[in-house]
Amino acid sequence: MTETNFKIIVEYDGRAFAGWQRQAPEAGPTVQGTLEQALSRLCAHPVTLHGSGRTDAGVHARAQCANFRTASGRSPGQIIRGGNCLLPPEVAILAAEEAAPDFHARFSAAGKVYAYEFSVSPVRRPLLHGRAWWVGAGLDLAAMERALPCLLGEHDFAAFQSAGSDIRDTTRAIFRAELSKPGPETARLTLEGSGFLRHMVRTIAGTLAAIGRGALKAGDMAGLIASRDRRRAGPTAPPGGLYLDRVLY
Amino acid sequence: MTETNFKIIVEYDGRAFAGWQRQAPEAGPTVQGTLEQALSRLCAHPVTLHGSGRTDAGVHARAQCANFRTASGRSPGQIIRGGNCLLPPEVAILAAEEAAPDFHARFSAAGKVYAYEFSVSPVRRPLLHGRAWWVGAGLDLAAMERALPCLLGEHDFAAFQSAGSDIRDTTRAIFRAELSKPGPETARLTLEGSGFLRHMVRTIAGTLAAIGRGALKAGDMAGLIASRDRRRAGPTAPPGGLYLDRVLY
Repeated sequence: MTETNFKIIVEYDGRAFAGWQRQAPEAGPTVQGTLEQALSRLCAHPVTLHGSGRTDAGVHARAQCANFRTASGRSPGQIIRGGNCLLPPEVAILAAEEAAPDFHARFSAAGKVYAYEFSVSPVRRPLLHGRAWWVGAGLDLAAMERALPCLLGEHDFAAFQSAGSDIRDTTRAIFRAELSKPGPETARLTLEGSGFLRHMVRTIAGTLAAIGRGALKAGDMAGLIASRDRRRAGPTAPPGGLYLDRVLY
Repeated sequence: MTETNFKIIVEYDGRAFAGWQRQAPEAGPTVQGTLEQALSRLCAHPVTLHGSGRTDAGVHARAQCANFRTASGRSPGQIIRGGNCLLPPEVAILAAEEAAPDFHARFSAAGKVYAYEFSVSPVRRPLLHGRAWWVGAGLDLAAMERALPCLLGEHDFAAFQSAGSDIRDTTRAIFRAELSKPGPETARLTLEGSGFLRHMVRTIAGTLAAIGRGALKAGDMAGLIASRDRRRAGPTAPPGGLYLDRVLY
């Protein structure tokens, strides 16, 4: 039987996992490990899954993308329905399709869309626990919005990289940076870019919250990027507000 | 110091609790027990909390109402902020105010608003796990809507009461019964009534889903209510889709 390269779209609640990447069992279940286990059972051979990139523990995905090869003859519908029956409630395969033989979820990716959700309620909201970052009311959203345009385009984003990273090339391009109000007490940052450094979206979210609170000014953003100095950016926002919304190919 | 009767509004994620009502510790944490513990510490005396009614394990509340008496001299702001610091992430006090001395969250209630959330996505959605009932795509929402008007008004709702209940008067009044589409893949049933029998909203939701799937007809609803026969209604929908949205006074 010929081998098929399947592209799958995956949704997960990050609170149930020690991140995307497969780890030693004592680290707790990971999204990749859990999916590989289900797909290996479904295909009756060991399956290796290639994700578009890692997400940290507690980070959610509305449409993570991954690919794997199988000669099992399973159809896309069988991958979805059979896979979902074998997966725990916190992760599911939303879509599956046959991809070109050389398609690779990580190397073929042209970009990613992330959303970061803020709860701007005056009181802590239990139904948003682990799903949005509660920053309180009184955030100056207009100031946060004024800080967004200077993120656009190609920049060295070393200032937003988590301390201790050893990536050499810290240049990335951001195509879209928007702040929206999905509800009266929530705000959403949407970032679309060529790629993101470790903790980059969360550090941008933390820096924007600092601007919203008045600890930093909207006009500080450009100098902060230019400084390439992590210490000048705001805190890393908690993982629960972050959603991998889409991978672009 | 004179005694104050506080009315509080509470939000909780029902997945974290063995229901509203205080129980023996081995049953697991309850919303009432958790709140009483925090308020007793805050007020430095044992606090007894009266809820507007019980909610089952897994059922959420966007605005449960309760009252308690204290001579601690705490202000409404201290009840909210101090209480929330002592409460776990899955429950919070959204509002607090001094009520009339004879106000009782349960006996003063004039009615309640419940919402039941359905996920009508063709695939299981992990981010809605425990938060909406996944009934799949293809539900005939128009048929479900046609079944709603006959719920309105005063009826004996024994057909929707959980089997084994021994409530004598099973007559209740429903003031509002609506089906809405908050998103492309979600549907919401809203019921406002004088009061609800145990599992009544969930059994109405289960019966409506049976109508949406074609297992029952919209025209069956009136006869089903008149029969007072629990066996003729649909299944009890799972608790995770149910939200106590508001208590009316």
